[in-house]
Amino acid sequence: MTDEITVIPGDGIGQEVTPAAVDVLESLEIEFAFHEADAGDHVKEETGEALPAETYDLAASTDATLFGAAGETAADVILPLREAVGSFVNVRPAKAYPGVDALRPDTDLVFLRENTEGVYSGHENRLSDDLSTLTRVVTSSASEQLAEFACEFVADGGYDGFHVAHKANVMRETDGRFRDSVLAVAEERGVETEEVLMDAFATHVCLDPTQFDVVVCPNLAGDVLSDLAAGLVGGLGMLPSANIGPERGLFEPVHGSAPDIAGEGIANPAATIISAAMLLEYLGHDDDGQAVRSAVEGVLEDGPRTPDLGGDASTDDVTDAVIDRL
Amino acid sequence: MTDEITVIPGDGIGQEVTPAAVDVLESLEIEFAFHEADAGDHVKEETGEALPAETYDLAASTDATLFGAAGETAADVILPLREAVGSFVNVRPAKAYPGVDALRPDTDLVFLRENTEGVYSGHENRLSDDLSTLTRVVTSSASEQLAEFACEFVADGGYDGFHVAHKANVMRETDGRFRDSVLAVAEERGVETEEVLMDAFATHVCLDPTQFDVVVCPNLAGDVLSDLAAGLVGGLGMLPSANIGPERGLFEPVHGSAPDIAGEGIANPAATIISAAMLLEYLGHDDDGQAVRSAVEGVLEDGPRTPDLGGDASTDDVTDAVIDRL
Ligand SMILES: CC(C)[C@H](C(=O)O)[C@@H](O)C(=O)O
Ligand SMILES: CC(C)[C@H](C(=O)O)[C@@H](O)C(=O)O
Repeated sequence: MTDEITVIPGDGIGQEVTPAAVDVLESLEIEFAFHEADAGDHVKEETGEALPAETYDLAASTDATLFGAAGETAADVILPLREAVGSFVNVRPAKAYPGVDALRPDTDLVFLRENTEGVYSGHENRLSDDLSTLTRVVTSSASEQLAEFACEFVADGGYDGFHVAHKANVMRETDGRFRDSVLAVAEERGVETEEVLMDAFATHVCLDPTQFDVVVCPNLAGDVLSDLAAGLVGGLGMLPSANIGPERGLFEPVHGSAPDIAGEGIANPAATIISAAMLLEYLGHDDDGQAVRSAVEGVLEDGPRTPDLGGDASTDDVTDAVIDRL
Repeated sequence: MTDEITVIPGDGIGQEVTPAAVDVLESLEIEFAFHEADAGDHVKEETGEALPAETYDLAASTDATLFGAAGETAADVILPLREAVGSFVNVRPAKAYPGVDALRPDTDLVFLRENTEGVYSGHENRLSDDLSTLTRVVTSSASEQLAEFACEFVADGGYDGFHVAHKANVMRETDGRFRDSVLAVAEERGVETEEVLMDAFATHVCLDPTQFDVVVCPNLAGDVLSDLAAGLVGGLGMLPSANIGPERGLFEPVHGSAPDIAGEGIANPAATIISAAMLLEYLGHDDDGQAVRSAVEGVLEDGPRTPDLGGDASTDDVTDAVIDRL
């Protein structure tokens, strides 16, 4: 069966790292049908809309979408795309690789970020000249779905359990619901859990990241804490991510469009290629996914390396080196 | 004129570090009237309420309050106390000190955290068995008051300008209002500003904290990002804070009650003593405040040090060494 993949390079270095990841996928013995689609600042400039309906529809109908990056319009592109694939969790591994300079080389974490609600639910109101409000939404159903996923993730990955990060000491009703729902599912499934306040997590992950493996978080907490972990492993250039839905997924590096280096052919494709490995695993090609991961890790360790990692290789050099190892 | 100070040791190591800071204040040639008041878990156990009305009233009527820490009831104690003193900004310096092991020894930041609204405004609703909501509140008036303070802070401290951290790409109306209000005041005052998304800040402060000096943030962003900075400078044990209102202030270390080491007499009093230095400066005793700061910095550099900093000194040893330097 052919896997149907939407490919959205987007803006800036998205135009470089996305084709790189597609090259890696094409080098495998798997039959893919790629559907290239457009989105981002450059589309908005031309058409007034950052995310064309055709792009949305493709993401909503193919098996998986590989997305590069968007510039100023990132939120207009990525949030609807996450919805298009019906994703309820954003899986964000943050791992320090041998050979890559990291503030905390002992970091090896996976964030499981709630992907549909919290402050992202989009209910904002301008109530007066002075006052605006946002309605933060938390449901037990979304929290439980995330927790079910977390329990399976922990079992599949051979982890001991997971942490739940929240701020239920202040957001008692909403994060209280989040926490209670997640803990109830875990208890039922016999998965060990530990709670951590999101602010305390920010301190403790710096002091000793080895305390944590899998961290289940509300939407914004997952956004900020995973970016913090990116700082510990040497920058956003290294973080892949997978937005998982029941029937489709969206795979994207955590980094942005990096306009400062766009067009120079020196963008680090590692995060996008590892995102493609997550896509492979999502589609059931576990061995290929694992092979791609290992190939990237080998290249990160031995080179060639792009300038952000202290080397002088191009995006293509790195991509070729990954393919050579497959 | 005698300065009236409410002293609330609270729970755990609050009972040790707060008297230490009071000893330092008493060693100065300033006339204080101290009013000791109770709050925290141990009060709740006895009376059912973590924050007695008398304690609230004292904080609401004296010139300044020095607070240690609270355990499980921290939110029930600290949030009303911040309100009691009418504080609109929480000033949180995060500085790495010579002689103290820090992940990023080049960290020297001050967070100016909005202290009254955002997700802290306390409007939560259980709308159904499945759904809870929280109303996040942002007003131009509170944002502007914070910005006015930031502009003065920058001028007094000789800083070039400040960063505004926010998530206005997602919370367009509320953080948009926050950002626009802050930037408008700064522009009017001729203060330079730069915007940074709160998630990007989390990455970049790890990669290079010297990019930032003063960071103005909404309430929860300030909570999490300052705790992150605590991780970069070697732990919460080092962070003082000042909750500033127009007529009174509340001064507290950022750390908690540390039940694991409470009662042993080995808690690090540095953050509380520096909080007392901020209290002195707030009350106009600038030279004394500066002297206390320098004394603490000298002791941090040369010792004696408490066990959290690798030494074997007691809280009293450190406090005496600070007083000796005054
Ligand atoms: C661009 C933005 C809407 C997005 C988010 O906040 O989720 C980004 O920061 C991310 O983490 O993927
Ligand atoms: C205890 C809690 C309510 C408080 C906060 O969130 O403000 C604490 O984390 C802090 O930073 O002082």
